[in-house]
Amino acid sequence: MQRNPQLNERGELQHLLSIEGLPAAVLLQILDTARSFMSVSEREIKKVPLLRGKSVFNLFFEPSTRTRTTFEIAAKRLSADVLNLNIATSSQTKGESLIDTVANLAAMHADMFVVRHASSGAPYLIARHLSPEIHVVNAGDGRHAHPTQALLDVFTIRHYKGDFTGLKVAIVGDVLHSRVARSEIHALTTLGVPEVRVVGPRTLIPAQVEKLGVKVFHDMASGLRDVDVVMMLRLQNERMNGALLPSAQEYFKAYGLTEERLAVAAKDAIVMHPGPMNRGVEIDSAVADGTQSVILPQVTFGIAVRMAVMAILAGNG
Amino acid sequence: MQRNPQLNERGELQHLLSIEGLPAAVLLQILDTARSFMSVSEREIKKVPLLRGKSVFNLFFEPSTRTRTTFEIAAKRLSADVLNLNIATSSQTKGESLIDTVANLAAMHADMFVVRHASSGAPYLIARHLSPEIHVVNAGDGRHAHPTQALLDVFTIRHYKGDFTGLKVAIVGDVLHSRVARSEIHALTTLGVPEVRVVGPRTLIPAQVEKLGVKVFHDMASGLRDVDVVMMLRLQNERMNGALLPSAQEYFKAYGLTEERLAVAAKDAIVMHPGPMNRGVEIDSAVADGTQSVILPQVTFGIAVRMAVMAILAGNG
Amino acid sequence: MQRNPQLNERGELQHLLSIEGLPAAVLLQILDTARSFMSVSEREIKKVPLLRGKSVFNLFFEPSTRTRTTFEIAAKRLSADVLNLNIATSSQTKGESLIDTVANLAAMHADMFVVRHASSGAPYLIARHLSPEIHVVNAGDGRHAHPTQALLDVFTIRHYKGDFTGLKVAIVGDVLHSRVARSEIHALTTLGVPEVRVVGPRTLIPAQVEKLGVKVFHDMASGLRDVDVVMMLRLQNERMNGALLPSAQEYFKAYGLTEERLAVAAKDAIVMHPGPMNRGVEIDSAVADGTQSVILPQVTFGIAVRMAVMAILAGNG
Repeated sequence: MQRNPQLNERGELQHLLSIEGLPAAVLLQILDTARSFMSVSEREIKKVPLLRGKSVFNLFFEPSTRTRTTFEIAAKRLSADVLNLNIATSSQTKGESLIDTVANLAAMHADMFVVRHASSGAPYLIARHLSPEIHVVNAGDGRHAHPTQALLDVFTIRHYKGDFTGLKVAIVGDVLHSRVARSEIHALTTLGVPEVRVVGPRTLIPAQVEKLGVKVFHDMASGLRDVDVVMMLRLQNERMNGALLPSAQEYFKAYGLTEERLAVAAKDAIVMHPGPMNRGVEIDSAVADGTQSVILPQVTFGIAVRMAVMAILAGNG
Repeated sequence: MQRNPQLNERGELQHLLSIEGLPAAVLLQILDTARSFMSVSEREIKKVPLLRGKSVFNLFFEPSTRTRTTFEIAAKRLSADVLNLNIATSSQTKGESLIDTVANLAAMHADMFVVRHASSGAPYLIARHLSPEIHVVNAGDGRHAHPTQALLDVFTIRHYKGDFTGLKVAIVGDVLHSRVARSEIHALTTLGVPEVRVVGPRTLIPAQVEKLGVKVFHDMASGLRDVDVVMMLRLQNERMNGALLPSAQEYFKAYGLTEERLAVAAKDAIVMHPGPMNRGVEIDSAVADGTQSVILPQVTFGIAVRMAVMAILAGNG
Repeated sequence: MQRNPQLNERGELQHLLSIEGLPAAVLLQILDTARSFMSVSEREIKKVPLLRGKSVFNLFFEPSTRTRTTFEIAAKRLSADVLNLNIATSSQTKGESLIDTVANLAAMHADMFVVRHASSGAPYLIARHLSPEIHVVNAGDGRHAHPTQALLDVFTIRHYKGDFTGLKVAIVGDVLHSRVARSEIHALTTLGVPEVRVVGPRTLIPAQVEKLGVKVFHDMASGLRDVDVVMMLRLQNERMNGALLPSAQEYFKAYGLTEERLAVAAKDAIVMHPGPMNRGVEIDSAVADGTQSVILPQVTFGIAVRMAVMAILAGNG
């Protein structure tokens, strides 16, 4: 059996590339560590010296101010030196290969790369070419994975629900194009959530998604019935006027999360969204800003989770 | 009477959004604090730990390398962690609202937002939606206000003239489109300058500006006569070939500050400009680089003033 | 005799603008200091406090993520505060002059400017207008010079060859347009390399280059014969489909560095390249990744060399 490329020979996390294939113990270690970091961001001086003198490179081949910012804050609160590289407009246009770019940065004694890339698998490719003391965190690759988003999502669920083993969770929207959805499914099933549902129009649910251990629903009324957690997905604008979807208005009519639709879920169900939200498209403002919404706490937890991932990786150097 | 949204219930500065409505005591507190910070930037190690572990977000919805840099330096000399967000090209284009963007950043435990926005009032809108431990500094909003520029201007005047109460001050140029001019007028009148003049062509002086307590002049010879301070405004390029102005050359002929024109001012009059200058348009190089120019000292004072604003706000958390 | 503008009245390095005109003793001081910094980047905490509280401005009028990153890392490992200014898109477009832009930044109590500019001589112009406690490092100006690249190149040669005085070195490629080549030639001849060759097609070798003390070759077989060091130059894409060169394929056929061509050099010859490489154009992958390649070590040494330059300049304040 081949070793998981994310784990070192002692079974410790060497890179965070995907939730798929990670044992529950590793996920729980991250969640436990993140809980211990929650207090750091509430202190007067929001810093711990765990990554002092380390060089963390934010390698964004696809622009994302929000995600880049969360990793930058997390690294700075760990006292790392952070270097932001927006690569789209530099070496890549000079014709240099991805591997050469990364090899060069590694030669500057980088300690960690946080990688966002439009191509699925790019962070794996990078990780494979690095020496073992350098770590890679996948910050979103193509349609493949967005593991830190999934980790902050399960952190949020654990925070509000305590335990995973009695839950019904619905993931709603454009599952087909969503790296977030794929990572969430793996995280939820690994942590023992007994019922994970995906809800969306046929055109936006991947074929054979049931093989991942989820139930498929094509209408909100049955998909949300009795669930404890509703995880909304962002609808990409570019999907909305193509062949897959008639229009944003039509989508909202069928799959937008309104208070009325939410009413079929459990009374204490929580509503999540990875952001940025399209209000009035996939979610109604009354729900987004309502009492069941935990969308802003997700963001807060996201910093602690990213600090935990970085601290664990650096400790496994 | 409604409370000034910039002050907390103890009358302390909670946000710096506008000079308008701030009591003289608050302005003088900032100026006094800035004076105490002047020495920090002259030290061997240009840092004090007042904002250590704080997260300062430079939120620039409108690009401005120069202004962003002054705030970044000021924050770093206070030992803050600084995050630069150029928002024009990110979430805003993804259709997220200003309030959602800021709520998300606030959820990351931000301590302070420095906001530049093309829309007048955007920093107020942001401030109104934040919890009270987070502070907003307006770094220029539309045509409305640029309070730190006005503060560094009055700091400069006090530095060279000692006292405000015997001064004649002329603000020259495109007053109509200038957020700097509006903030300067409020700062000067609040601090007791007895004679504030605005000088410019009829097309570039706002109607009813006299209500702000200023005298209007449409020619330089009478506008500059006997003044102690000449505050030039930057002429925006986009104004120069429209209906409002014939051409840059024509403008310079009528309103450009030359040595000859400056000669009607007081012998020891100082010349100021917020930068960047259009040499040969609103100001002649002989004046810009002459002995009466305090344009570069303004920049130096600007760092101390911004450090003072940030330190006072953080102290009032 | 006029004083070298790079040296202060005590003969110490005040700015690093060009290798031309620097005495060997200054180059050797940089190389020796860089050697002492090599260990810093290998430590658990990769930081020394030599530039703590100093403000280093990366002034990039021409974008270059890679070079900017090397200076940013070097400055941060010296504990400086680093400010990145991409000027192409800001003040310059507002019509402000280079000198006004820099004078403004200097007024913010800058300690050091790292300048990349498309115009040859821009860093000199800047240095001439600054007060003596502020230092300028040329990070590449037009076709003129790229002194830190040349310094890391000679550091690399010294590391592998020990001594300069018995070496044959070939610089291969587009010498005509290369600021790197010019700086390398000056560094090698100043340090006593007895035989420096330039190799390339007639259209890409500057007229009268022999006056710099080099031998000219137009074919690889004779140009590389018995050399100890092969320094490849990057071929700019924009040269490849113009009048100067037929095509990338033709260029590779005549001047691309292959294992076969390298075989005529000394058995232990090293191969260098400033990056980013055009694999298959100026260099074959088998050579770039081969046992004689020291291209990645060059990058590692580059951090130490830039730390050395900054530390020496700051010490000569």
